[in-house]
Amino acid sequence: MERKKNISMAVIKRLPKYHRYLAELMKNDVDRISSKELSEKIGFTASQIRQDLNCFGDFGQQGYGYNVNELYNQISGILGLTKDYKTVIVGAGNIGQAIANYTDFEKLGFTLQGIFDINPKLIGLKIRDIEIQDIDYLSDFLKENPTDIGVICVPKINVQKICDIFTKNGVKGIWNFGPVDLVVPEDVKVENVHLRDSLLTLSCLLNDIE
Amino acid sequence: MERKKNISMAVIKRLPKYHRYLAELMKNDVDRISSKELSEKIGFTASQIRQDLNCFGDFGQQGYGYNVNELYNQISGILGLTKDYKTVIVGAGNIGQAIANYTDFEKLGFTLQGIFDINPKLIGLKIRDIEIQDIDYLSDFLKENPTDIGVICVPKINVQKICDIFTKNGVKGIWNFGPVDLVVPEDVKVENVHLRDSLLTLSCLLNDIE
Repeated sequence: MERKKNISMAVIKRLPKYHRYLAELMKNDVDRISSKELSEKIGFTASQIRQDLNCFGDFGQQGYGYNVNELYNQISGILGLTKDYKTVIVGAGNIGQAIANYTDFEKLGFTLQGIFDINPKLIGLKIRDIEIQDIDYLSDFLKENPTDIGVICVPKINVQKICDIFTKNGVKGIWNFGPVDLVVPEDVKVENVHLRDSLLTLSCLLNDIE
Repeated sequence: MERKKNISMAVIKRLPKYHRYLAELMKNDVDRISSKELSEKIGFTASQIRQDLNCFGDFGQQGYGYNVNELYNQISGILGLTKDYKTVIVGAGNIGQAIANYTDFEKLGFTLQGIFDINPKLIGLKIRDIEIQDIDYLSDFLKENPTDIGVICVPKINVQKICDIFTKNGVKGIWNFGPVDLVVPEDVKVENVHLRDSLLTLSCLLNDIE
């Protein structure tokens, strides 16, 4: 497989969407697709698609289009989906529970191995057979159970603290739902879901049309 | 206020972050800040910040920096936060409940006026004094209660259907949590929170460092 060292963040951000559409095409038994057809489905221009997909190899064939299955597998590889990831969620409120309940993530190779909370009312309850544990045990748990991705769903004030516990215990990927921009060591990757920022983007767009 | 007609999507996406940091500064009684100091806090370069803020007027003063309060108010205006927005959530699962419980959104001017679900076990329950209603009444409710923003938190298969009910009843802003790219009339604005895409972006970044 071509390495993707030089793929820009903009392309990386588009890859999950390609992956999603290609999965759909496979489900509908579509074997091949032209960049033009893919463009109509996915909403990027055909030239954008050809440029993106050229970044990591030469799949398209003039007059034939893309082999859907092959392209899907390649993109899966680039997205790191040929590996398994152990995940731990901290914060078992609504967002944490929602993430814990997404069984689709398990199918993609993300295995939830622990859920932690500070709230005594939640500790001991189970989500999909995984018991919510006391946050005091997080550090010990991470030492005993190497974890790839830490999911942070706690109130603002504790976000950086939880992040520090994750990174001190070897977690290299942080999926952050807190409205905080985290400070992490250089080798740690962070992906944020900032709901407040997303809602304000929408109000900004709405304001623009009036 | 300067109109923001020509502000690019990239700048719009950064505005909520400025807004968040400026709110923090105001809370800490900071009156003014240089682009350099703001840069250290927010993580954009000082020149990026000057360029962004120049898009909608001339706030900075050489050797003085930005007036925090004034800049906050300007950005609030551009983000449309000087107005109120009526919102309706469809889907009262974990994500829907999480959104409904974010009282911070109310403080920013987003007023939740209705929650709908298809599940008889949820219908009739209350979230923050708002009763979850049967989705069959959504259309009538929207006719009687003009709504600015429709929040979609339903399973994939129903996402476009709910979106259509919203847009047919005058809703101009869609906040979509479903893993679907919506088809909407031209004057409707969509902001997506695609959790699956976000997680795959993280796995892609992790794969890159190994």
